[in-house]
Amino acid sequence: MPDRIYNFSPGPATLPQEVLHQAAKDIVNFKDKGIGLIEMSHRSKEFMAVTEETESLLRELFAIPSNYKVLFLQGGASTQFAMVPMNLLGNGKTATYLNTGTWSKKAIKEAQLFGDIDVAYSSEESVFNHVPQPGDYTVAPESEYLYFVSNNTIYGTQFHEFPDTDKDLICDMSSDILSRKIDVSRFGIIFAGAQKNMGPAGCAVVIIRDDLLDRTPDNVPTMFRYKTHADKGSMFNTPPCFAIYSIGLVLKWLKKSGGLDAMEALNQEKAALLYTTIDGSDFFRGHAKTASRSNMNVTFNLPTPELEAQFISEAAAKGFDGLKGHRSVGGIRASIYNAFPKKGVEDLVEFMKEFEKKNS
Amino acid sequence: MPDRIYNFSPGPATLPQEVLHQAAKDIVNFKDKGIGLIEMSHRSKEFMAVTEETESLLRELFAIPSNYKVLFLQGGASTQFAMVPMNLLGNGKTATYLNTGTWSKKAIKEAQLFGDIDVAYSSEESVFNHVPQPGDYTVAPESEYLYFVSNNTIYGTQFHEFPDTDKDLICDMSSDILSRKIDVSRFGIIFAGAQKNMGPAGCAVVIIRDDLLDRTPDNVPTMFRYKTHADKGSMFNTPPCFAIYSIGLVLKWLKKSGGLDAMEALNQEKAALLYTTIDGSDFFRGHAKTASRSNMNVTFNLPTPELEAQFISEAAAKGFDGLKGHRSVGGIRASIYNAFPKKGVEDLVEFMKEFEKKNS
Repeated sequence: MPDRIYNFSPGPATLPQEVLHQAAKDIVNFKDKGIGLIEMSHRSKEFMAVTEETESLLRELFAIPSNYKVLFLQGGASTQFAMVPMNLLGNGKTATYLNTGTWSKKAIKEAQLFGDIDVAYSSEESVFNHVPQPGDYTVAPESEYLYFVSNNTIYGTQFHEFPDTDKDLICDMSSDILSRKIDVSRFGIIFAGAQKNMGPAGCAVVIIRDDLLDRTPDNVPTMFRYKTHADKGSMFNTPPCFAIYSIGLVLKWLKKSGGLDAMEALNQEKAALLYTTIDGSDFFRGHAKTASRSNMNVTFNLPTPELEAQFISEAAAKGFDGLKGHRSVGGIRASIYNAFPKKGVEDLVEFMKEFEKKNS
Repeated sequence: MPDRIYNFSPGPATLPQEVLHQAAKDIVNFKDKGIGLIEMSHRSKEFMAVTEETESLLRELFAIPSNYKVLFLQGGASTQFAMVPMNLLGNGKTATYLNTGTWSKKAIKEAQLFGDIDVAYSSEESVFNHVPQPGDYTVAPESEYLYFVSNNTIYGTQFHEFPDTDKDLICDMSSDILSRKIDVSRFGIIFAGAQKNMGPAGCAVVIIRDDLLDRTPDNVPTMFRYKTHADKGSMFNTPPCFAIYSIGLVLKWLKKSGGLDAMEALNQEKAALLYTTIDGSDFFRGHAKTASRSNMNVTFNLPTPELEAQFISEAAAKGFDGLKGHRSVGGIRASIYNAFPKKGVEDLVEFMKEFEKKNS
């Protein structure tokens, strides 16, 4: 194996190498304090400073307005599927959901435990190969919020235009947060598992407008109330310290790399390399409809499942790892998050062209 | 600062240095696979093997019977305060709790949302300076379980004899799991945050007898059902990969160090050094009653708050970190978990004696 393979995993995903090297140093001896990062009390001034710096960088890079709280929680995005309706719904309340894939389906299932759920749009019949455009659905007037998933990792689709509604938008942004500039003020809650664009697994970042903190019914347990964590700066109980620290390192790298403007341009370039290759070939066939194509996860098929298996196997031998598509779509999925190097995409494109030449 | 201070923090707590060094290596390049540990898909065969090895070592060292599931969850012990009653109680059901400190009080508060809670014993009036002995309380006959906290980090008390009842024991073992041999088959559920005796923050280990998996009411969200995680080997969603991996390293170290027999003997030796010093002095005064003294957290006071502040400050200057007691008890707390070196305890005892000589 080479020193460093190309890791196309959908998540946990590739991280900047400088982040890994810095983490390796700090785990043994944090800032030469004679104590490892993962041994430090979360209430030590050193670790409090780590958390504050991470939050402050996230606020700066993502342009988070001051009336939003930033929370570092555990349990992944999957726990948020329940926490959102636990905090915002209750008997007789309604919310609208857009069903654009596995993750929205799971979120809908949890929400149905806590209110009336209006599924205003579903692309399930076309194997979730697109997301709706504004105007494709109507939001129930009595809805508390409109929930959607901005990027669908499994199917390789992405909202390039956000829903146009006066309802609070609640967004699972797990697989494209920080990949582009957005207007946070259009959202009530944005949440995202860290393990794609932000850091290692083990932390979900929740960005919540502060007026939403006071709606939680009394019977919701302490740990599942957003206000619990907002009031204590994510230190109500021991937080996922290593993940928060690592997110901070990734954010420093992101800032140094030019912030979201530079990252958005780079992500478009990387995705375009693959989509152009797919479009210029009869051998490769993209899963997602053009207007819904994701810049994070590029999904495509080959003429037969046998060729797909051969493609994955030959790619792995060359150090292209994690290209196997999710079982619900099959084929190939190249996940090319922020930290995935452009050179890796170029090399994959070259490999695709050679493979097509030999096998078509 | 020396290369390595003595870290008396109650948690996150000191870890074996060899664990830190191994983690530092694997974070950059796991087993020379050309990919860092924290970038690997949780479904890769490499990471699945990490999880299996961690579980297998825990089963071996803690002698967990085969009819128990081992779960690696997120949200800390605080989330378990809610998950236990969510899964085992419901309308009209009763559970018995022993109130021996801050963590049991918090657990009682959450349980009251899901059933009738019988607090059979409380040591709150004596600032939680002891735990009950068998016979000090009776368990309501209709109780579904008896809940207790085996070691009270804040007050420095520990159960040396477990409750004697035919009810299922549910135990928060966060601060003394793996510090001694126990008979797991006496328990329905044992849970523990990792960040004291097992690894870094970000993972709670749950050991649950398998017949308890099927009692959960239908209205409990997917992520808060034990069965969800048991059915998927803790891989229902992305688990806290780095914490699971680190727990595995700590368990390897524990095995190499002689397992629980050796650890229990060492823990008794370390604690005895401090308690003997306290008992042999009129200057230091232990908080916990003798029969309830913890081998993990040794709490004591000095004659005045001023002397306590001076003690903490002079100790810190010598590289003894994290000795300040919790605000609810004041004074000094020396947390001496499994990985805390005996030499550190000996050096602290020497410092205590010098401090007493100079200041009494």
